[in-house]
Amino acid sequence: MASQSNNKQSNNKRLDNRTGKQTFVFHNRPNIIGAAAVVGEKEGQGPLSQWFDLILDDDTYGEKTWEKSESKMLKKAITMAMDHSGKTKEQMDAMLSGDLINQLMSSSFMARDLEIPFLGMYGACSTMTESLTLGSVLIDGGYADNIVAAASSHYCTAERQFRMPLEHGNQRPPSAQWTATASGAMILSSGPREGQQLIGGKQARNICVTHATIGKIVDAGIKDANQMGAAMAPATVDTIYQHMQDTNREPSFYDVILTGDLGHIGKKIAVDMLRKKGMDLDPVYNDCGAMLFGEEQDTHSGGSGCGCSASVYAGRIFKEMREGTIKNALLISTGALLSTISSQQGESIPGIAHAVALHAE
Amino acid sequence: MASQSNNKQSNNKRLDNRTGKQTFVFHNRPNIIGAAAVVGEKEGQGPLSQWFDLILDDDTYGEKTWEKSESKMLKKAITMAMDHSGKTKEQMDAMLSGDLINQLMSSSFMARDLEIPFLGMYGACSTMTESLTLGSVLIDGGYADNIVAAASSHYCTAERQFRMPLEHGNQRPPSAQWTATASGAMILSSGPREGQQLIGGKQARNICVTHATIGKIVDAGIKDANQMGAAMAPATVDTIYQHMQDTNREPSFYDVILTGDLGHIGKKIAVDMLRKKGMDLDPVYNDCGAMLFGEEQDTHSGGSGCGCSASVYAGRIFKEMREGTIKNALLISTGALLSTISSQQGESIPGIAHAVALHAE
Repeated sequence: MASQSNNKQSNNKRLDNRTGKQTFVFHNRPNIIGAAAVVGEKEGQGPLSQWFDLILDDDTYGEKTWEKSESKMLKKAITMAMDHSGKTKEQMDAMLSGDLINQLMSSSFMARDLEIPFLGMYGACSTMTESLTLGSVLIDGGYADNIVAAASSHYCTAERQFRMPLEHGNQRPPSAQWTATASGAMILSSGPREGQQLIGGKQARNICVTHATIGKIVDAGIKDANQMGAAMAPATVDTIYQHMQDTNREPSFYDVILTGDLGHIGKKIAVDMLRKKGMDLDPVYNDCGAMLFGEEQDTHSGGSGCGCSASVYAGRIFKEMREGTIKNALLISTGALLSTISSQQGESIPGIAHAVALHAE
Repeated sequence: MASQSNNKQSNNKRLDNRTGKQTFVFHNRPNIIGAAAVVGEKEGQGPLSQWFDLILDDDTYGEKTWEKSESKMLKKAITMAMDHSGKTKEQMDAMLSGDLINQLMSSSFMARDLEIPFLGMYGACSTMTESLTLGSVLIDGGYADNIVAAASSHYCTAERQFRMPLEHGNQRPPSAQWTATASGAMILSSGPREGQQLIGGKQARNICVTHATIGKIVDAGIKDANQMGAAMAPATVDTIYQHMQDTNREPSFYDVILTGDLGHIGKKIAVDMLRKKGMDLDPVYNDCGAMLFGEEQDTHSGGSGCGCSASVYAGRIFKEMREGTIKNALLISTGALLSTISSQQGESIPGIAHAVALHAE
């Protein structure tokens, strides 16, 4: 493979860890040795209920403000993931995390409490795969042995920051998505999880990260903040298509291809756009936003927020891969890089998506 | 498949690119092959005037909103840095950038226009060394050949977002700092700059990144948003001290140790705190916030904002290292991770600082 060749003149020890245009190859295969998803009450009543590690009874989580609730929820997901990994916070070399709240308030205050060296990430709802990508680079490249990758969102913090005060009780159009109250965290490590772990009498599989594709911003010109799925679909399509080109894989290589969070409308657009480019994602494709809530939960086009894909990956996908029901998964968190200011200034919504390929062995 | 042919059970080829607790060592020494600093009118009237690549006549930069002005300024700094490096945007593998504006509006819209794969960073005013650190990891580890690392701030976007509408003309206490209207960008590359470049008849030096130390969040309990220097000083001290421990270096190893942006007050606190720990930074230490404006410019405790250290590093330090007047530099961008919401909710201000060591050869 071209990616294996070393074309450096002076740096003869330097490896080439790329394939194609936008994809990193992790030859040392960073392991995901622990994960946890903490979600709110409504998310816990949805179809994915069984997969979450903690479902809150009360979305305030005992805090006086929603922002502090979100920060506490994120911290809980990270501490549960560390516990699950068998590692302590003192063993973590760095933490990569982000959220939707201005100046990453949820992540910053969580990081203050945990005292792990911190790198703040922002990719809107694409943050979980951004954290996973850069965390995997740090492990694979030998810069760290244990890394926390995390992301969160909370319906009540996002709603009042981006849209309306909750007390206003405004109507939402059918294309709108519902910001998930959810946090997801994964522990990346240079070695596999220590000690034997049995699931249903069988040895749990080891999960590793094999590739990551970094996305470009694609702006479809959409200005309606209630059409986030449509705004993010073109960037998502661009990243998935590039990933397949770069890795020389077909969608059928994967048991699961999971975007998050295009919702019902964006998911259909992405499938159509890829089909026009000659790529069929059936039957392995789904979207975390479309999966998180049941139709009767009245969230319209589905879930959104950094925590939506973070909790589905750290909750369901991690467990299914450990159990052996999924062997190869492609996870693509998708972000809409708007702000209230950019919308007020008449700007359209730039979309971005990063893809991470996981393998269970 | 690339990954399948290299399925590794053991990590015997994996390098160890760390030293001490929090420091990365870049054995392949990523090169800084281009840099540019674009600043506003007031910054261009200060004592560092001669070092900037472009000084705006008008801080609107021909745009209708301050946020669009900042985004355009950041884009200009990046395109100038790319031009200077002799590389095109098509050769850039990724771009790491951040700013202070909600949801990284300045960086996101810049990245939309440049169409380079984008990773959004947030570390408040520590963003430039966060971008440089992760950019260096991507180059050093063989994940990329050319990377843009950048950060920006604008007095008029920050002031109205974090403090008061400009039209309000409110008084600032003597401890307050002045958010710099400034953008800085550096181009990191796996190889040195191509072609000979003479400065004053002598061959320009090659600059490379040798180490990076990732900081922990340290919260000194300060709640006054006009005391940012004091809030950031303890985290800065923690990172500088850790860097020296990890690398087994003394401050005197460096020709320049440059924090950004503690301002006049924070700088004194940091010096005192380090002295108490037995570390003397004299005579090599200075702070970008303390250097950017002259006393007569009435900015009180000095400059701040992501663009403050970004423009001083990309402007003055880059040029001085190219010319050979600085051989070893330690750059420590410092961030105050507050938001208007965290302040309103009575929270103190968490500080963070990341350090990057440069060497000219």
